Amino acid sequence: MIYFDNAATTQVYPEVLRTYTEVATKVWGNPSSLHNLGSQASRILEASRKQIADLLGKKTTEIFFTSGGTEGDNWVMKGVAFERAHLGRHIIVSSIEHPAVKESALWLQSQGFEIDLAPVTKTGFVDMEKLASLLRPDTILVSIMAANNEIGSIQPIREISQLLADRPTISFHVDAVQALGKMPIADYLTERVDFATFSGHKFHSVRGVGFIYAKEGKKISPLLTGGGQESDKRSTTENVAGIAATAKALRLVMDKFDAGQKQLLAMKQIIHDELASYPDVTIFSQIEDFLPNILTFGIKNVRGEVTVHAFENHQIYISTTSACSSKAGKPAGTLISMGVHPKLAQTAVRISLDEDNDMGQVEQFLTIFKQIYNQTQKVR
Amino acid sequence: MIYFDNAATTQVYPEVLRTYTEVATKVWGNPSSLHNLGSQASRILEASRKQIADLLGKKTTEIFFTSGGTEGDNWVMKGVAFERAHLGRHIIVSSIEHPAVKESALWLQSQGFEIDLAPVTKTGFVDMEKLASLLRPDTILVSIMAANNEIGSIQPIREISQLLADRPTISFHVDAVQALGKMPIADYLTERVDFATFSGHKFHSVRGVGFIYAKEGKKISPLLTGGGQESDKRSTTENVAGIAATAKALRLVMDKFDAGQKQLLAMKQIIHDELASYPDVTIFSQIEDFLPNILTFGIKNVRGEVTVHAFENHQIYISTTSACSSKAGKPAGTLISMGVHPKLAQTAVRISLDEDNDMGQVEQFLTIFKQIYNQTQKVR
Ligand SMILES: Cc1ncc(COP(=O)(O)O)c(C=O)c1O
Ligand SMILES: Cc1ncc(COP(=O)(O)O)c(C=O)c1O
Repeated sequence: MIYFDNAATTQVYPEVLRTYTEVATKVWGNPSSLHNLGSQASRILEASRKQIADLLGKKTTEIFFTSGGTEGDNWVMKGVAFERAHLGRHIIVSSIEHPAVKESALWLQSQGFEIDLAPVTKTGFVDMEKLASLLRPDTILVSIMAANNEIGSIQPIREISQLLADRPTISFHVDAVQALGKMPIADYLTERVDFATFSGHKFHSVRGVGFIYAKEGKKISPLLTGGGQESDKRSTTENVAGIAATAKALRLVMDKFDAGQKQLLAMKQIIHDELASYPDVTIFSQIEDFLPNILTFGIKNVRGEVTVHAFENHQIYISTTSACSSKAGKPAGTLISMGVHPKLAQTAVRISLDEDNDMGQVEQFLTIFKQIYNQTQKVR
Repeated sequence: MIYFDNAATTQVYPEVLRTYTEVATKVWGNPSSLHNLGSQASRILEASRKQIADLLGKKTTEIFFTSGGTEGDNWVMKGVAFERAHLGRHIIVSSIEHPAVKESALWLQSQGFEIDLAPVTKTGFVDMEKLASLLRPDTILVSIMAANNEIGSIQPIREISQLLADRPTISFHVDAVQALGKMPIADYLTERVDFATFSGHKFHSVRGVGFIYAKEGKKISPLLTGGGQESDKRSTTENVAGIAATAKALRLVMDKFDAGQKQLLAMKQIIHDELASYPDVTIFSQIEDFLPNILTFGIKNVRGEVTVHAFENHQIYISTTSACSSKAGKPAGTLISMGVHPKLAQTAVRISLDEDNDMGQVEQFLTIFKQIYNQTQKVR
């Protein structure tokens, strides 16, 4: 089996699952309990928070745990909007945000907020001039992803940080779900970024755990109110085992970062160059300014689902451009926003690599690709 | 060690953790993925949903997964309020609801909804007459817990169901987090109940997984929007391993139900009768109309924390009345709502038993209790 769908989800690392089961078995108290089963759990919780904060170069008081990327995105969007509504009601998100951000923005629109979608260039990057022209005195929130999940384009977070440098009243949110472990932290967690969203299962942790970074002093109202956990910002009995597992996964991912980058890029380059040699292949993900693990392409006149299933017959797992849009059979929102013709967008499939993939798998993939390409020749 | 704090959290059953690790290891695809790693995961997800629905006597389309009780409570409160705001803006919750419900109601108040707190009797039950008098033509939501987490009083859900029988425009929500596995389902999931909240870690499943029951045809807007999972009602990549573990835990808990009830009641009765014989003990949880696992009491003039720590020295783990209020050092909200004097309320501690506790532990507890009672005699 060749799993090239790591942007949809990753397999939990065995060591991470061991941490999970060990904590779940041995340190299962409720961190809020006064007795020492509670304080043990609380210590693991805070040690995990510190480890994550340290790895990101942030303060422990700036990390808040969630149930995943979607909750993080919803929380930041809604929590900042409600917190700052008295200052203004204008919000900007890019046109290629993940639905967790986009749908949150649309919901806020139904609650009286004004939403502008910042357009992207033909190659998939937020258009800086257009973004600048959308800023208004009553803009309270700008949300731009670090790296796009459908094609892997890396957004100009440093430039946007500069653009917003003298606009301190605007909260700046970065969805970093696909970026973590795949690009240097400094490129998306700039000093200007106020909030960022992360999800554990995208970096080999367990499902259902994520966290947000919220810069010290930046206000956000809770999405989950209740018992007052997470400094009264996100209530619920803490998933200590899942959180400890996530801290462990982050450490492993960071340890592998340098070697992983090289390995991913080398694999992507080979696939890219080979696919580029086929006349009926369109490649949507370039090398420069794109994540080293994501390559999205299409075979002319062949619908993405057909390509996915053709590979599946060889136990090679890839994806239409995003897992969550795939069942709905919708063409990739990102490509449409880039101005790609819907008929072409519908051919798109996404390969998303992992550090644990190897060149043997890349070669096998390319061999099978050639077969599939030839088999589908009659439809072109 | 004697763990009598099962209302705060329970230890995950070994079989449940095995299910978790097995699914996390073997069926780790994203259920939304088109390929068969995705469909395998999707099958486990739907099989778990069916198992839970069957055990509750409900339809699979009526069960939606969450990250726990707090998310469920927040979702139902806010999701119903926003969905039905055009019909009215009046909401009633009991004065002894868990903070997840109460704080959600208060947040809705800040958004222009009108909240009434239904008072409780001196013994901890919603006052039916007063509740009836609070109903208005613009009431859209009534939220009353099945059983209280601080003293275990079972609320009159059947009577409230009758009261609301001819008020079909009112959505009726029941927080059943403490009730599940501790009282007959029919007593809180009546035909009239529209929404109910459950949390896995209270019945020996893993942390960070819960579900809500939402009656067919009853509308609720999502709290977590995004990729469209859970029939577009609750987005995020599904925690399949946690969900499968929760289905397993529910089955185990239901299998043990009849024997467990007897066992719990027998243990509670002995503790109750023994404690009642001490002149300086006040018991807040009676036998009839109370959960068989919760017994809350106080030693005159001895603060709850002191009693908790005294037991902790003997490796007996009990709680001030709720884990989440305990660190804040607040007196039990439920007791205050019942009209208990704050000084008396501050003495309260909660024992919460589990089917796996035994009579030997009960005897040991009572022996230690006697010591502690005598040691604290000078302050009385
Ligand atoms: C960019 C981005 N944001 C948010 C999410 C949502 O993350 P989760 O599935 O953990 O809710 C995803 C993945 O699905 C993503 O790729
Ligand atoms: C009655 C009640 N509702 C809701 C909750 C919240 O559940 P969770 O900790 O899973 O968010 C709890 C427990 O803390 C509870 O006892």
